[in-house]
Amino acid sequence: MTRETLTLFDTTLRDGQQTAGVDFSAEDKHRIARALDALGLDYVEGGWPGANPTDSDFFAAPPRLARAAFTAFGMTKRVGRSAENDDVLAAVINAGTPTVCLVGKTHDYHVKTALGVELAENRDAIRDSFAHLTALGREALFDAEHFFDGYKANPDYALSCLDAALEGGASWVVLCDTNGGTLPAEIGEIVAAVCARIPGSKVGIHCHDDTGMAVAGSLAAIDAGARQIQGTLNGLGERCGNANLTSLIPTLLLKAPYKDRFSTNVKAADLPKLARASKMLDEILNRAPNRHAPYVGAAAFTHKAGLHASAILKDPKTYEHVPPETVGNERVVPMSNQAGQSNLRSRLIDMGIAVEKGDARLANILDEVKRREDQGYAYDGAQASFELLARRELGLLPRFFDVERYRVTVEKRINARGDAITVSEAVVVCVVDGERLLSVSESRDAASDADHGPVNALSKALAKDLGRYQSYIEDLKLVDFKVRITSGGTEAVTRVLIDSTDAEGRRWSTVGVSPNIVDASFQALLDAITWKLIRDGADAAVLPGRAPAPAAAVPAE
Amino acid sequence: MTRETLTLFDTTLRDGQQTAGVDFSAEDKHRIARALDALGLDYVEGGWPGANPTDSDFFAAPPRLARAAFTAFGMTKRVGRSAENDDVLAAVINAGTPTVCLVGKTHDYHVKTALGVELAENRDAIRDSFAHLTALGREALFDAEHFFDGYKANPDYALSCLDAALEGGASWVVLCDTNGGTLPAEIGEIVAAVCARIPGSKVGIHCHDDTGMAVAGSLAAIDAGARQIQGTLNGLGERCGNANLTSLIPTLLLKAPYKDRFSTNVKAADLPKLARASKMLDEILNRAPNRHAPYVGAAAFTHKAGLHASAILKDPKTYEHVPPETVGNERVVPMSNQAGQSNLRSRLIDMGIAVEKGDARLANILDEVKRREDQGYAYDGAQASFELLARRELGLLPRFFDVERYRVTVEKRINARGDAITVSEAVVVCVVDGERLLSVSESRDAASDADHGPVNALSKALAKDLGRYQSYIEDLKLVDFKVRITSGGTEAVTRVLIDSTDAEGRRWSTVGVSPNIVDASFQALLDAITWKLIRDGADAAVLPGRAPAPAAAVPAE
Repeated sequence: MTRETLTLFDTTLRDGQQTAGVDFSAEDKHRIARALDALGLDYVEGGWPGANPTDSDFFAAPPRLARAAFTAFGMTKRVGRSAENDDVLAAVINAGTPTVCLVGKTHDYHVKTALGVELAENRDAIRDSFAHLTALGREALFDAEHFFDGYKANPDYALSCLDAALEGGASWVVLCDTNGGTLPAEIGEIVAAVCARIPGSKVGIHCHDDTGMAVAGSLAAIDAGARQIQGTLNGLGERCGNANLTSLIPTLLLKAPYKDRFSTNVKAADLPKLARASKMLDEILNRAPNRHAPYVGAAAFTHKAGLHASAILKDPKTYEHVPPETVGNERVVPMSNQAGQSNLRSRLIDMGIAVEKGDARLANILDEVKRREDQGYAYDGAQASFELLARRELGLLPRFFDVERYRVTVEKRINARGDAITVSEAVVVCVVDGERLLSVSESRDAASDADHGPVNALSKALAKDLGRYQSYIEDLKLVDFKVRITSGGTEAVTRVLIDSTDAEGRRWSTVGVSPNIVDASFQALLDAITWKLIRDGADAAVLPGRAPAPAAAVPAE
Repeated sequence: MTRETLTLFDTTLRDGQQTAGVDFSAEDKHRIARALDALGLDYVEGGWPGANPTDSDFFAAPPRLARAAFTAFGMTKRVGRSAENDDVLAAVINAGTPTVCLVGKTHDYHVKTALGVELAENRDAIRDSFAHLTALGREALFDAEHFFDGYKANPDYALSCLDAALEGGASWVVLCDTNGGTLPAEIGEIVAAVCARIPGSKVGIHCHDDTGMAVAGSLAAIDAGARQIQGTLNGLGERCGNANLTSLIPTLLLKAPYKDRFSTNVKAADLPKLARASKMLDEILNRAPNRHAPYVGAAAFTHKAGLHASAILKDPKTYEHVPPETVGNERVVPMSNQAGQSNLRSRLIDMGIAVEKGDARLANILDEVKRREDQGYAYDGAQASFELLARRELGLLPRFFDVERYRVTVEKRINARGDAITVSEAVVVCVVDGERLLSVSESRDAASDADHGPVNALSKALAKDLGRYQSYIEDLKLVDFKVRITSGGTEAVTRVLIDSTDAEGRRWSTVGVSPNIVDASFQALLDAITWKLIRDGADAAVLPGRAPAPAAAVPAE
């Protein structure tokens, strides 16, 4: 069976940019555009040249895309001037992109009320805009704004606007559910009516998620004959967002009937790139990734319920609708109250710690986890701290050094020059092999002269002089720091999660909890250092007058 | 036209509880159950008695619900023992709830592989479990696990399991898409096949969001004849979550054809309660609310794009699919780069500050917002700080007091008794009317003796002695504190958002940004105090030797 082609159009950089709180720099846009191109998207809509300075800069020095058609967005010419003389349109054209996508009104109410012009004038403006673009040799797509509402109000008018765009030479007419309120069944019916008159190979769909059904609406349109989907990475977009390409693409590639009926320029082997592009966008926006996102979310293949977890270990097909590796994800059977001892044993084995089935200490570990979770600890995202907890219960946690005390000071004052400056300083007193080592650090950044706060000062002081352990921690770097106010029993506590890396490229997460944020950070820092010392095989503490403690059972990596 | 009844079944406290990172206390469950009951849900599934200590406690002292049927979850009896002698089932029964919901296998592969029993044995176990429950006078529902995969593999067997449950006296058979991978169109076809044999008034649907289409799948089932929907608040649930009742219920009540064809026990006037229940769940879980959630999200009716914003002010219908107030939400036209001066003017008017159209300072305000956003500030969630920024540009920001310097110390040491204790202390030097006032505070909590950290100490010291302004801030309370590491240009900075309240019940949000978390918190605290002094009409500073500064143009509330 010959497969039909489905075209994928990404508008992360244009419709996604319209989200409150989103402001891409030109550099951000370059990174995202390149990732979308590498992934296999057919069109990358870069923004609206002339609408704001960032977009104008971006189009002045556009990305070189290997495959995707780089597209400038704009709107159809205003009534009362020619396409040549519309300055807003001119700015879009002057960006010089191979492809242009123009939005225009197709809902009679909008034409008369929002634009304040006659229905025929609007239709002519659409036709003339596209005629102008195609005369200039550009490919031009029509975003039919408010199409579904428009069709319901005045179907003849809405369809005539599509005709006008096609007469002008538009390559695609994209039906936009601009307000996001059209249900998938209605979308299917209306798209079917359109595809009865216009070849589906020229019809696209652009949904918004205001009822939580943008993905389903897009598929309903494909079922009804449309052959282009417009959407964004992670469903980024105004209000409730656009159709989520990160959810749609895996469904199109992995699930019947789409995987059998259609082909796209995104290939199944490239799906892990989709997960990475999704993560990259979250990093650029400094957003916590959605753990529960379909396919790519950290929890998408995370099985907590005890029943499910045992069945999974027997046969993953039983509880997974697609194998996680096909989308660049992985199966996780996390530690928590509801996981049983069998999960715990397999987790310990992964860490290189073998414990016999039925060993009483397994229950101790589960109890300790529960006790700490009640206090506010969370181990799902802090595997290294969980390992230390387990080792402690199993008598496999070496003692390396103690911190006798610390003191952290943050001071804001006026300096000699009259400027307000902030200074953070930390003093740490460690005991290594019976010897007291005092260290003091500031958290001033050499380059920017900015002060990076009390936790930074504390981590520097902790890592400044650890006696014979110093060499192990020279390459330890704190790379992420997350703070969460949560509930620890009856009162609010602060939970700090720290990610650390080292020269070997390892990355591990530790957690600390306290009503005091500095103390919570201190716990997480201490766990991070301890974990590294264990992994690197450092010898345990030698107490004065005693023989060295037996080396910890260090697991093979 | 007579409307058919749609039944709504909430499983937030059971399926939602199975989410990694979710652990409701019995008290949490009581609050949520009461909210669901008040909202009009028909069934509230409280958990699995006997499966874990919290659930056993909860069912031992269950909530008194006015309308909703309080439901205990369990599983069908195991093969090889009678229903009376199955201890796991007994625990569920002994909870004494009026209603019980039992999950059972309907997918032949699961019966043989996961359970390891014969197909007929499983079917008998289903029938016998329900016969037992109905003999005891309970209402009993059947959750047909993996139904859609089971139907596709062996439709006769799957249907025979439904029949068995009904023969045993089940009131409903709920078709569960346990793996979440069945697409809405398939769900519709299979539900239609089931409803050809079983009255739709006994058929329910239970979807998961693994392809991002649980809501659409649930509606497809209703379209095909099912009359019960199972879901959770905020779509809480394992992996990618359950069908989101917070999205579904407004659609059922506000949108054709559902609002005309069906009635539920949730009424349109109660929709604002749904938004509040959604918020409450986020608070209990200490999760940041999803700003982009359909209907109830903070951004659901937030219009950023300049074009949209002007059209909205003319006629909201143009860009909103339902009026925001119908779902307890409100329209927001936020401050940002893309908003124009007209949005800014209307925002200032809302604050009681009138500025002429075309006033040059409007552009200054927009520029300053942009400049600060580039540094990491975010004003969408910090309206009070935004007001202070605008006032500063307009020359309407009184000067009340200065903070000459502060010093915050966090110290962890061993006390005389040998315990490790943490102590936070803050010293603040304020200048009020030329007089220097020194204050020192600790952040020790009197009740728990726990130390609440440097920011708490600083806020107490700041509010300890503000001279003649002291009375204004006696009732100022810091109620929420959010920390975010974000990007401020080339380096990472900490953004702190603080919510404050006062005796008049006002609640306002302020923001601070710095690489140093204490300094960021300090800025937000200072803004919070300044905003209150303005709102309360405090007089500006009197500098020694000078007449009092002119009173600020205090806006009428």
